[in-house]
Amino acid sequence: IEQDDSVRVQAILEELHFADIAEIIDDLNLDQAIFIIKLLDSVRTSEALMELDEDQRDRILSALSPQEIADELEEMDTDDAADILNELPENVAQEVISAMMDEEHVENIVDLLRYEENSAGGLMAKELVKVNENWTVTGCVSEMRAQAENVTRVHSIYVVDNNQKLKGRLSLKDLLTSAESTPIKDVYIPKVDYVTVNTSGEEVARIMRKYDLEAIPVVDELDRLVGRVTIDDIVDFITEEAEKDYQLASGISQDVEANDSIWELTRARFPWLVLGLFGGIGAAAIMGLFEPLMSQHAILFLFTPLIAAMAGNVGVQSSAIIVQGIANDDLKGSIGNRLIKEVLLAMLNGLMLGILLFAYTYFSKGDVMVSLAISTALFTVIIAAGLIGTSVPIILHKRGIDPALATGPFITTSNDICGILIYFMLAKAIIGI
Amino acid sequence: IEQDDSVRVQAILEELHFADIAEIIDDLNLDQAIFIIKLLDSVRTSEALMELDEDQRDRILSALSPQEIADELEEMDTDDAADILNELPENVAQEVISAMMDEEHVENIVDLLRYEENSAGGLMAKELVKVNENWTVTGCVSEMRAQAENVTRVHSIYVVDNNQKLKGRLSLKDLLTSAESTPIKDVYIPKVDYVTVNTSGEEVARIMRKYDLEAIPVVDELDRLVGRVTIDDIVDFITEEAEKDYQLASGISQDVEANDSIWELTRARFPWLVLGLFGGIGAAAIMGLFEPLMSQHAILFLFTPLIAAMAGNVGVQSSAIIVQGIANDDLKGSIGNRLIKEVLLAMLNGLMLGILLFAYTYFSKGDVMVSLAISTALFTVIIAAGLIGTSVPIILHKRGIDPALATGPFITTSNDICGILIYFMLAKAIIGI
Repeated sequence: IEQDDSVRVQAILEELHFADIAEIIDDLNLDQAIFIIKLLDSVRTSEALMELDEDQRDRILSALSPQEIADELEEMDTDDAADILNELPENVAQEVISAMMDEEHVENIVDLLRYEENSAGGLMAKELVKVNENWTVTGCVSEMRAQAENVTRVHSIYVVDNNQKLKGRLSLKDLLTSAESTPIKDVYIPKVDYVTVNTSGEEVARIMRKYDLEAIPVVDELDRLVGRVTIDDIVDFITEEAEKDYQLASGISQDVEANDSIWELTRARFPWLVLGLFGGIGAAAIMGLFEPLMSQHAILFLFTPLIAAMAGNVGVQSSAIIVQGIANDDLKGSIGNRLIKEVLLAMLNGLMLGILLFAYTYFSKGDVMVSLAISTALFTVIIAAGLIGTSVPIILHKRGIDPALATGPFITTSNDICGILIYFMLAKAIIGI
Repeated sequence: IEQDDSVRVQAILEELHFADIAEIIDDLNLDQAIFIIKLLDSVRTSEALMELDEDQRDRILSALSPQEIADELEEMDTDDAADILNELPENVAQEVISAMMDEEHVENIVDLLRYEENSAGGLMAKELVKVNENWTVTGCVSEMRAQAENVTRVHSIYVVDNNQKLKGRLSLKDLLTSAESTPIKDVYIPKVDYVTVNTSGEEVARIMRKYDLEAIPVVDELDRLVGRVTIDDIVDFITEEAEKDYQLASGISQDVEANDSIWELTRARFPWLVLGLFGGIGAAAIMGLFEPLMSQHAILFLFTPLIAAMAGNVGVQSSAIIVQGIANDDLKGSIGNRLIKEVLLAMLNGLMLGILLFAYTYFSKGDVMVSLAISTALFTVIIAAGLIGTSVPIILHKRGIDPALATGPFITTSNDICGILIYFMLAKAIIGI
């Protein structure tokens, strides 16, 4: 197909949805991709560009001139254009901005660059339909028609006052059934859900999910309407956040995919493995301190992997529940109460597991004191791991760090070491050596 | 507030959005909740009911009579009503169905009950706006007006033929700008994305995300239009799936929340911990076989937690990447290629980590053979764990089991045991005892 047969390729591409074109481009090499990008008209290129895999997009963009990139951005929605500019090196972004022609569009895009990526400001687009409360129905309709041309999906009509403050929203039905000279003031609905530019992405997602919204207006610190977030951006946001949490919990530090190169995958995985290695060396060092015990009580050393694994499992379980509670914003009660609850829970689980382990060790080895030492240590380690697992995500969250980190290898490794330390100290005390 | 002061409570509730009412009801005890439910008019109750926490909803429903439930369901969208019926015990559901009055509504709901919860059929609602391709523009507009009354958000107008087969969609703009006597046949857009009733929920979510759709029509095996899935249901679906995967990976077997009772939390967590306990006992038994080594080579036993932890970490990393690849449907190439890639990756990581560990053990203990044995074992265990971690989720997926299970404690525990077994066998061979 790729024999430079532009006409035929173009005919095929014209039939396809831009998301499918993006999928095809993802599978091509750079030269072929550029060839296709240049063949497409710029409305479709810009849409296909947004759907591309990030790595492939970076490669394509770095092969285009600033002027060419500027032409693409002119066709994009403000939020997408801002995302692309964020991905470019700063000097290139600067050149692209100066090469763009549409003054208002550029201003809107640069405006969006100010906000943090993870906030309502960073997620919103400038495209929306708004009317002034002092207009009449007639004036409104013609204004709306002009504005709607730049907006892919209208969703809602927002009403603002002379200072651009958000006052409410307008139902299309009310607009159409009102007399032509009625001022908007008399027909708009003053109740409207909104978020501010600094609202976190998670919170925007939560509100839109809760009220089943398809778009939500965004206001600045002075309550002025500055943009809106649409549900498709939120769907992407939710999916990416979930993937990030899942990867953090699995010990993968960057956004990687199964199809990435071995080198990229290693960069994402190796640091956590080194951490695990140091953790293991730490555990070995601690056990080394108790080596003299080995001649008399070899059995203690056989159960260290069990103790370490249980500490890790309990810690991850406790953390995961807290992390989800934080994400859904439904943690109730104080930290103190939560820790007390976790201790009770850990005691219940620890007691049952301790009895099981005692039964096994006693019947297989026949030494009451040693069995008691091992199972008491398990009980204690489970409580400690539960406490660490509960408090670490809460503390991370308070310090503005993603609490999902707590379910990853870092905590598991610390729990392993703590667990082994507690185990040997308790065992030593109980057996009385 | 709850002093049976119906009038005042009612006044307050009237001001609130149903999602907020649901949040309040979640925090009340059962009697208070029922009191409020009975106070609200049934449109709002039914909407608030849908937003409730599942446990609280079950309690409230079991306190209502079948007739009362039927009245609520009459007001609900078909998909929500079907979800509620699914939650009820079978005999109650039967009574509720017979108590409902609106024949067509009941038929639609019962129809939805046939589909699997996790499929497009289970996610879709019957409410939509459709027109026949043989109608004229005038006939169409009056039909649409009647249909739209039952539909909360119109999104799209679908076009069907006389056999109810989906032909395309209609743009409101084209409809309004066409002459009144034009047949729909001449103005509709024949390109439309759709899914069948058996398409999995994941696939529906992927398509809607890819094409940024807000609603997608669902057809049956004969291409007849039977319903549509809207984006708000997909947002809920994506969030729930992500939570489920995250919980599976963390060793939590049921859908629990931080605020659930200790008993519920224990039921979700304890089974995995028992599994971990058995794993640990298995590891201890394996190590017991090598106990005679202890007198000469105690150091080997100090490094078992390290080996077990690394096997677990590598396994979870490999599985997580495959699980996400499966979820996004972007795994390319055969299983063979994927395993070869993972082996290369594991060899690279294993070599680097092995060298690090060799350096540490050699400089701290000074025994070349023992250091070599430990680091070679680490290298081998990492490769084995990578292979297990890659193949298990692929196999689970092929058998129709959720691959996210592979990142949970089950695989970690098996990896631990395998790792320890490989470790001691290799060490024994290398040191030559």
